[in-house]
Amino acid sequence: MKWCRFQSGDSAAYGIIEGDSVIEVTGSPFDSYTKTSKSHPLSSVKLLVPVNPIPTFYAAGINYPEHVTWAAKMRGEEPKLPKKADVGYRAVNALIANEEPIMVPKDATEQVQYEGELVVVIGKTCKNVSQAEALDYVLGYTIGNDVSERTWQRGDRTMWRAKNTDTFKPMGPWIVTGLEPDDMHVTITLSGRVVGEYDISSALFGVREYISDMSKYLTLVPGDVLWMGTDGATENMKDGDTVEVEISDIGVLRNKVVWQR
Amino acid sequence: MKWCRFQSGDSAAYGIIEGDSVIEVTGSPFDSYTKTSKSHPLSSVKLLVPVNPIPTFYAAGINYPEHVTWAAKMRGEEPKLPKKADVGYRAVNALIANEEPIMVPKDATEQVQYEGELVVVIGKTCKNVSQAEALDYVLGYTIGNDVSERTWQRGDRTMWRAKNTDTFKPMGPWIVTGLEPDDMHVTITLSGRVVGEYDISSALFGVREYISDMSKYLTLVPGDVLWMGTDGATENMKDGDTVEVEISDIGVLRNKVVWQR
Repeated sequence: MKWCRFQSGDSAAYGIIEGDSVIEVTGSPFDSYTKTSKSHPLSSVKLLVPVNPIPTFYAAGINYPEHVTWAAKMRGEEPKLPKKADVGYRAVNALIANEEPIMVPKDATEQVQYEGELVVVIGKTCKNVSQAEALDYVLGYTIGNDVSERTWQRGDRTMWRAKNTDTFKPMGPWIVTGLEPDDMHVTITLSGRVVGEYDISSALFGVREYISDMSKYLTLVPGDVLWMGTDGATENMKDGDTVEVEISDIGVLRNKVVWQR
Repeated sequence: MKWCRFQSGDSAAYGIIEGDSVIEVTGSPFDSYTKTSKSHPLSSVKLLVPVNPIPTFYAAGINYPEHVTWAAKMRGEEPKLPKKADVGYRAVNALIANEEPIMVPKDATEQVQYEGELVVVIGKTCKNVSQAEALDYVLGYTIGNDVSERTWQRGDRTMWRAKNTDTFKPMGPWIVTGLEPDDMHVTITLSGRVVGEYDISSALFGVREYISDMSKYLTLVPGDVLWMGTDGATENMKDGDTVEVEISDIGVLRNKVVWQR
């Protein structure tokens, strides 16, 4: 099943994508919903960020070995792989939908880079769940681009502006249910050129492990999102570039890059 | 004006506190509201976390010189004062209201400590605002206790469980409007003994500076909260302790500590 959130007149509505159509629903995938008689061609609707509000915006951060190794090399350090699943946070101010532009602020350096990631959307409240039952609490999966200004990431004590400047968190285009995360493959292209590829299964800590470990301390609730981190090296994005993150069985998240000069 | 959020029958309502009464309103302080004819004795209502939902939960973190110096000494390091206002994040799963218990997990060490803080509640959307106009975007102020497990804070790569374990973020009891933050004084007591005192004005970076600096990169929106950090040393809280954070002209945030053994 493929869920989207879209602009319907003056307000936002959830919809179910069937073929080339969006069936508008009342309610949401997180509680109860009813299909309405309204159907829209998918090509005619404006897709919104597929979950909103997001109670807590979690991010795995360091979770793929090649990315850790690459990032350490950039900093002239020895790579240190994390020994357990630690989580960070991102902020909803930075979210934009599929096809909305990434607006790079005037004072950013040229080191503004993509990170293509799997996003897990929590569907049910959970606390203290085992790895075996963890996926029962997932509504589905979408795609995220953890845009990062590397100079700020190195220089600031926290990653607040490096990772959370307005428009730095594209997420979408929709949420697909019933998938197995370890079967997914990620392909990242920059203006048509493939710049990164990896398997979700090469993560240091998988979706089941993250949810189980987090739920020992935290109550996860419907609408929480967990970004799973990226693998490999990343490159600078230039003014006018288009960045696409494709994940098999989910779709493509596409955003243009606009430098505010 | 004193705003609260409280349990009214099966749902949550905002209310205005006048003397010993709570006047129930429809709507919220963040958009439009109307006073209803319902009035409740303040002593009879169950106060809830005074803002919910919170779009983004910001925390200044390192913002008071004596706390920085004390924390560095604990770690056997030289204190390094931050040169600019950096922000971190906390998570809404951890919020509890005034008089609700802080539940310490079984595997925590004895180093579970309070941090009494001023909390700024954003009232209007802002981006790129000057320090002079920053307070125009504040709805009011409440009190936070940034409960921290120091072993996890030192040992984990992020502060996710150290600072965001369920119940580790008491906030309340209400929101007071029309105050000047630099006039406020904080007093923290542990089971009746004063364990910390400081002036809000001794912050490295004040409320005006934080809001102005953040808004250069981030759009702040109604309901965002910003915790301003704490000053001085902190102590362990034991099972059965009551921790109170008092801020002049706001009130007292009081929570009991329960160790799950």
